Amino acid sequence: MRILVVSGPNLQRLGLREPEIYGRTTLAELHEILTREAEGLGVELVCRQSNSEGELVTWIGEAGADGFAGVLLNPGAYTHYSYALYDAVRASGIPVVEVHISNPEARETFRHTSVVAPACLAKVAGFGVRSYSIALVGLCELLRATKEG
Amino acid sequence: MRILVVSGPNLQRLGLREPEIYGRTTLAELHEILTREAEGLGVELVCRQSNSEGELVTWIGEAGADGFAGVLLNPGAYTHYSYALYDAVRASGIPVVEVHISNPEARETFRHTSVVAPACLAKVAGFGVRSYSIALVGLCELLRATKEG
Amino acid sequence: MRILVVSGPNLQRLGLREPEIYGRTTLAELHEILTREAEGLGVELVCRQSNSEGELVTWIGEAGADGFAGVLLNPGAYTHYSYALYDAVRASGIPVVEVHISNPEARETFRHTSVVAPACLAKVAGFGVRSYSIALVGLCELLRATKEG
Amino acid sequence: MRILVVSGPNLQRLGLREPEIYGRTTLAELHEILTREAEGLGVELVCRQSNSEGELVTWIGEAGADGFAGVLLNPGAYTHYSYALYDAVRASGIPVVEVHISNPEARETFRHTSVVAPACLAKVAGFGVRSYSIALVGLCELLRATKEG
Amino acid sequence: MRILVVSGPNLQRLGLREPEIYGRTTLAELHEILTREAEGLGVELVCRQSNSEGELVTWIGEAGADGFAGVLLNPGAYTHYSYALYDAVRASGIPVVEVHISNPEARETFRHTSVVAPACLAKVAGFGVRSYSIALVGLCELLRATKEG
Amino acid sequence: MRILVVSGPNLQRLGLREPEIYGRTTLAELHEILTREAEGLGVELVCRQSNSEGELVTWIGEAGADGFAGVLLNPGAYTHYSYALYDAVRASGIPVVEVHISNPEARETFRHTSVVAPACLAKVAGFGVRSYSIALVGLCELLRATKEG
Amino acid sequence: MRILVVSGPNLQRLGLREPEIYGRTTLAELHEILTREAEGLGVELVCRQSNSEGELVTWIGEAGADGFAGVLLNPGAYTHYSYALYDAVRASGIPVVEVHISNPEARETFRHTSVVAPACLAKVAGFGVRSYSIALVGLCELLRATKEG
Amino acid sequence: MRILVVSGPNLQRLGLREPEIYGRTTLAELHEILTREAEGLGVELVCRQSNSEGELVTWIGEAGADGFAGVLLNPGAYTHYSYALYDAVRASGIPVVEVHISNPEARETFRHTSVVAPACLAKVAGFGVRSYSIALVGLCELLRATKEG
Amino acid sequence: MRILVVSGPNLQRLGLREPEIYGRTTLAELHEILTREAEGLGVELVCRQSNSEGELVTWIGEAGADGFAGVLLNPGAYTHYSYALYDAVRASGIPVVEVHISNPEARETFRHTSVVAPACLAKVAGFGVRSYSIALVGLCELLRATKEG
Amino acid sequence: MRILVVSGPNLQRLGLREPEIYGRTTLAELHEILTREAEGLGVELVCRQSNSEGELVTWIGEAGADGFAGVLLNPGAYTHYSYALYDAVRASGIPVVEVHISNPEARETFRHTSVVAPACLAKVAGFGVRSYSIALVGLCELLRATKEG
Amino acid sequence: MRILVVSGPNLQRLGLREPEIYGRTTLAELHEILTREAEGLGVELVCRQSNSEGELVTWIGEAGADGFAGVLLNPGAYTHYSYALYDAVRASGIPVVEVHISNPEARETFRHTSVVAPACLAKVAGFGVRSYSIALVGLCELLRATKEG
Amino acid sequence: MRILVVSGPNLQRLGLREPEIYGRTTLAELHEILTREAEGLGVELVCRQSNSEGELVTWIGEAGADGFAGVLLNPGAYTHYSYALYDAVRASGIPVVEVHISNPEARETFRHTSVVAPACLAKVAGFGVRSYSIALVGLCELLRATKEG
Repeated sequence: MRILVVSGPNLQRLGLREPEIYGRTTLAELHEILTREAEGLGVELVCRQSNSEGELVTWIGEAGADGFAGVLLNPGAYTHYSYALYDAVRASGIPVVEVHISNPEARETFRHTSVVAPACLAKVAGFGVRSYSIALVGLCELLRATKEG
Repeated sequence: MRILVVSGPNLQRLGLREPEIYGRTTLAELHEILTREAEGLGVELVCRQSNSEGELVTWIGEAGADGFAGVLLNPGAYTHYSYALYDAVRASGIPVVEVHISNPEARETFRHTSVVAPACLAKVAGFGVRSYSIALVGLCELLRATKEG
Repeated sequence: MRILVVSGPNLQRLGLREPEIYGRTTLAELHEILTREAEGLGVELVCRQSNSEGELVTWIGEAGADGFAGVLLNPGAYTHYSYALYDAVRASGIPVVEVHISNPEARETFRHTSVVAPACLAKVAGFGVRSYSIALVGLCELLRATKEG
Repeated sequence: MRILVVSGPNLQRLGLREPEIYGRTTLAELHEILTREAEGLGVELVCRQSNSEGELVTWIGEAGADGFAGVLLNPGAYTHYSYALYDAVRASGIPVVEVHISNPEARETFRHTSVVAPACLAKVAGFGVRSYSIALVGLCELLRATKEG
Repeated sequence: MRILVVSGPNLQRLGLREPEIYGRTTLAELHEILTREAEGLGVELVCRQSNSEGELVTWIGEAGADGFAGVLLNPGAYTHYSYALYDAVRASGIPVVEVHISNPEARETFRHTSVVAPACLAKVAGFGVRSYSIALVGLCELLRATKEG
Repeated sequence: MRILVVSGPNLQRLGLREPEIYGRTTLAELHEILTREAEGLGVELVCRQSNSEGELVTWIGEAGADGFAGVLLNPGAYTHYSYALYDAVRASGIPVVEVHISNPEARETFRHTSVVAPACLAKVAGFGVRSYSIALVGLCELLRATKEG
Repeated sequence: MRILVVSGPNLQRLGLREPEIYGRTTLAELHEILTREAEGLGVELVCRQSNSEGELVTWIGEAGADGFAGVLLNPGAYTHYSYALYDAVRASGIPVVEVHISNPEARETFRHTSVVAPACLAKVAGFGVRSYSIALVGLCELLRATKEG
Repeated sequence: MRILVVSGPNLQRLGLREPEIYGRTTLAELHEILTREAEGLGVELVCRQSNSEGELVTWIGEAGADGFAGVLLNPGAYTHYSYALYDAVRASGIPVVEVHISNPEARETFRHTSVVAPACLAKVAGFGVRSYSIALVGLCELLRATKEG
Repeated sequence: MRILVVSGPNLQRLGLREPEIYGRTTLAELHEILTREAEGLGVELVCRQSNSEGELVTWIGEAGADGFAGVLLNPGAYTHYSYALYDAVRASGIPVVEVHISNPEARETFRHTSVVAPACLAKVAGFGVRSYSIALVGLCELLRATKEG
Repeated sequence: MRILVVSGPNLQRLGLREPEIYGRTTLAELHEILTREAEGLGVELVCRQSNSEGELVTWIGEAGADGFAGVLLNPGAYTHYSYALYDAVRASGIPVVEVHISNPEARETFRHTSVVAPACLAKVAGFGVRSYSIALVGLCELLRATKEG
Repeated sequence: MRILVVSGPNLQRLGLREPEIYGRTTLAELHEILTREAEGLGVELVCRQSNSEGELVTWIGEAGADGFAGVLLNPGAYTHYSYALYDAVRASGIPVVEVHISNPEARETFRHTSVVAPACLAKVAGFGVRSYSIALVGLCELLRATKEG
Repeated sequence: MRILVVSGPNLQRLGLREPEIYGRTTLAELHEILTREAEGLGVELVCRQSNSEGELVTWIGEAGADGFAGVLLNPGAYTHYSYALYDAVRASGIPVVEVHISNPEARETFRHTSVVAPACLAKVAGFGVRSYSIALVGLCELLRATKEG
């Protein structure tokens, strides 16, 4: 079972940018941690990051066709206006879990609305970079339950 | 380490009400499952449910003083208008994680806004009754990290 | 066939409060009149009033499980913001008719919106305390038609 | 005592149009049923339908002058924007009861607002074509109470 | 020089309807007064009233082609939503003055917006039925100035 | 196969009114051109125009019952507020294509919203009077595909 | 009978500023014309202009106490936000007619709302500087009618 | 003369919760201070607190009937959405003064609106716990003036 | 200790204007009463009134530099739109208490918003002219507590 | 005469994604069909698709300079927020026709607004993939008319 | 070439008020610096400040007539609501550059809107008091280019 | 000291596109002028343009890490919706000045809001391509002041 982990704009600067909000773990370190945890869960991870909305749309939209069973998606600021990503999630044909490092609803007003959420299956936010790990556990459970059920 | 699990209005009917949205596990069964999982995590759970906003406000507001280290809160429909609960979360003095069985942002418009979220530390939504379990894992990690850090 | 009649906040003061809007019949007198009319219609009534949103949520949510065939609900001011009552009506599993003594849409702006209405089957408003009687006739007809149909 | 029953746009297609919402009784059949029920209540009915806002405005505005004691008005889609009908109800000088076959507040957002309601005395909605019958009973009671009172 | 005077919905009840707002002069009397005053100003009046939006649209839209030099238009409640009348005023090709008996901006909120105004040349409101007379004087002056200028 | 072509308010002045927006072809000429083109497509056209919302509602609502296979509808300014036309389109039981001569979204703000569109199958706008011809081609294709499919 | 004519901000530049909107008559010339016309109507005029909201508030608020029978008020841009002027009009205790040279509702959006209007008796707009003259005639008529009535 | 002092949700935590906003006086201490001050003013106080909206509604609604001459009401977060409390204040039949410890208009946006205020006689906010004392002085003066006047 | 009392637009007409709202005490009388009460409290008052927003801005902005310890400010209608006054309050460097004679939130909608409030320390409203006296007591207490604390 | 056909985000999945909305024709098949139809119309087509807003902006903005006579543009989800595309259409200097496979106004609310439309000449929507063909016919006619005219 | 520098409300307190936002240079010092810099640029400056909206309106509106070639305008808080200043800028007949010391869009929400901007030629904000100097350079360039061009 | 100059979507067409708004200088010419001016100011410029939001996000977000001391950013149409750019500006860790050729607040409504501005230090707009030069002067001053201060 392969799972795609996608991080959006400005997350290449994770660990370097506003650490009081996003923490001090870099994206490379996070990908390493997640890969290790995924092994423990018996799934294979592919981790990607892009600042380009179009590239994110392609990755998500093709994820099902590319053989992924599910997606963890941190859309960064695109969360708040990218209806193209919303459409991509719907077009992917597989379960997508929205992930946020911080708790967007406790920050600026524009972060209180997620236009991507209505197409997603579930959401995990506010646990710092641990949000990815926790969402991974949840997604694996869901995929196993669906497979078995 | 004791953790409080609070469920709000209409959740006494969990498993009986609109099962296509909320699933078929009853609240009693859920509390049992959570208690077992908490044991595995080395924490003690206290599980409560109330339809009364005032009672929820009291439980949350007094949780810190009552010796709890953290709270899992599913505010049900109060999520969308109870500023009294928002104040109670702030008054509790301990981390509170917002939990939802369904993904509210994929449902009616009024469910897209959480007035409680800005006072909460984190959120887990959309994994069915498993949202509680996943949130519990996340909250325990956070509490341990804080303790150690 | 048993029908539940539920009146919400401030209706304990019916007949005493702003009689130019709500009339001079007290709630006790109204319950008496309705009980008599219900007998004439061959149904049994249970009449309750509460100022507590939580108690109203419980009564409505459990009404189907408690063996009621339908509900007359005057949510008072909760009409305009209690999504918990909206959820309770949906959770009840039986037809609920919204009742108002005055015509809310002819009064203050906040009374023009009913958040409970989208979950209700029907509405009767503006006939003074006679709104309950008229709604009772309508509900009985509906329940009989459903039973027969 | 003569009562005017007025139905607005598209109601000429009652029973033929979207029967899952509006039922299978035609307007002619409804008028017949109402007329019979009115006899039982000792009042005389005049039943009319028009798709023309102007004609509806004329009928309602002149109803008092034409000797009617009250009006049952189903304004159809004009409910949601015809301030001309609102003015006509006020100009009529007699009690007008707003009637709807379906429960507009449980349908598309534009149907949640009635610009006619603030000028009406009362409202009955959601009982299918029985809404007219139930409203008729309520209006007769009111007119008698006023006469006697 | 011929001028068209057009009154919209419910104005057939002028003098009979809500006299504390609209006064006690009937429409027939008003037409008589205006015709006399027009004679004094050396212009010929044609006075019409309709409750039908379509008829008003036709009269206004054809007014220029029908040889009128200008129009006094009291759109009644259509003022607030009839974009068809707005289009008709633009299609008329001649100056149109908006007239109101009462001062709409001192009444219900919905009367504070005129969708017809942006297509009109000028407005007179609040002088009771004298608004027509005053607007007539203004329109004649404008037409003479344009002719001469 | 018969198709109904319906034009709304102020379109009787086509070719005469604001030609920089609507062009110089009159409605009679347009009807002639369309009829000729329809012959080429093997369908029979009935072309009508009305300024009356009620008449438009009747024509559209009865179009299916009157044996038409589809409708081209240019609702003029009613596009922006006539929920009665929206209901009529739904009540017609046949495919309706919304047609506009100009591109309403490039004009005044009120023209950016079509309340009729959600009930229509398709839309053609901005090709001048050729919008009708292009929509006719599209509608014929659709009707044939449906028939065959 | 004395009438106060008050013009607000930027009207000291009348005739010099944007003449395609406001015309070429200067304020001094306008005052002269109005004074002459007032003589013909048997009333005495006092004409003032100020750019200061406070001064306008004082003039209007004291107008009744200063022995004026009525006021013509062109509030200029203060029309759209000066609730202080609204209060002054109410405090004046005498009829105030709102006057505009252009037709504000045909210009920028912010000019479509008059916060002063709800306190005024009547309005004249769009006749160029003749709006003042026409409003003067209307005000005199009203004052005479009130005196006699 | 008896006066009722009512404090709403989360005020049981006064002195313990967010002291930089609400200060360090506990509710018990505040009640003691107020009781002493009331004695000095020659009135008797009854002090209550509840987190339950329903209980607050009952206390306020019955206050007149229970022999109180006036009420000091700090509705806590219910200030911003409890139309049931608004109705209760109107139903009480006696003067109610709204009290706030902090200045809600200087805090989060949701605190800028009081839905209870339009039913209250007066408001005191921002003086810390001294707001109660100051409001008490004001209410006593008003009640005396009314009694004497 | 010197305190500045500032009243805004239209308050020069206090006692003369709309006495059913503002009472019958004139501003001169109010200033006299306040001065006497201030003496009792051991503070010196300077009382001013202006209709000019600029003058109010100057008085408030310079109040700290002019040696005042605090300000009572009734901004009249400027309350609802004068961000210049908001800035002046912040620029003053001393505590400012907002005062209103009536209860603005129980009146027209535009009075429900105070743009000045977020810069003020506290608010007293609705006690008639006694609001000034009550606010004076509160301000003195605060200033003393600050001095001592 | 060369025409550019541009399809936006997620259209690479046409025929594979949500076929009940978008049909079963793939983008490659659509391009083939269009190319064949273009030949019949005597024009040359260049067909492109991109998920990247930037690439779409470049293609559209340079289309005129690249020798295209017109553009068919299906902006996908960018329709609803890409002001960059709006600017690109204006910068292209050639006619652009907006194309949609489905009827966006009959779907989710966010699809009811096109920010690109005000810069486009015309729109075709709702005919399935045939929308492109129909728009092509319309665009060719327009380009020929402009060339000849 | 003479240039007018106008500063609005509360700027008399520059250097004294909230120095963390506005810096420590006083207005007198700023005027001195600007005058020196203007000399270097070969233009003559006139520097003024007023808290009075009316005075600002007069200065700006008369600036062209008074022989100024351009204006630097810092409207202070009037930026956000003074349509009178907007009109004055248009009435001035010369280029006006809007200047702000801080970056208003990074502060309170009300500061995000400038009603004066649409009438201004250009804007400089956020450089502290250097915004004036930078704007002066820009304005001089523009005036020279216009003169030469 | 190195400064990055970044121009966003459609600016590759500068000088070619809508010259009445954007002027006739091409981007290449502008870069040349700026580079020359930068030399005069003793700083080194790197000038880039992209239509891709993702590329802009990368450039801005990495600018500090890439050794730039500051950024001039003309976000083109992304100004109005790119929260990803807002985040990138915050992530850059260096001062960013927003630059616009035209005055966006004097154009279409959507251009009145900048979502990027709250993260920027300063703004220059409306001086044509000279806005870049003027902003460069301002940014250099700021950087020097910071360095020295």
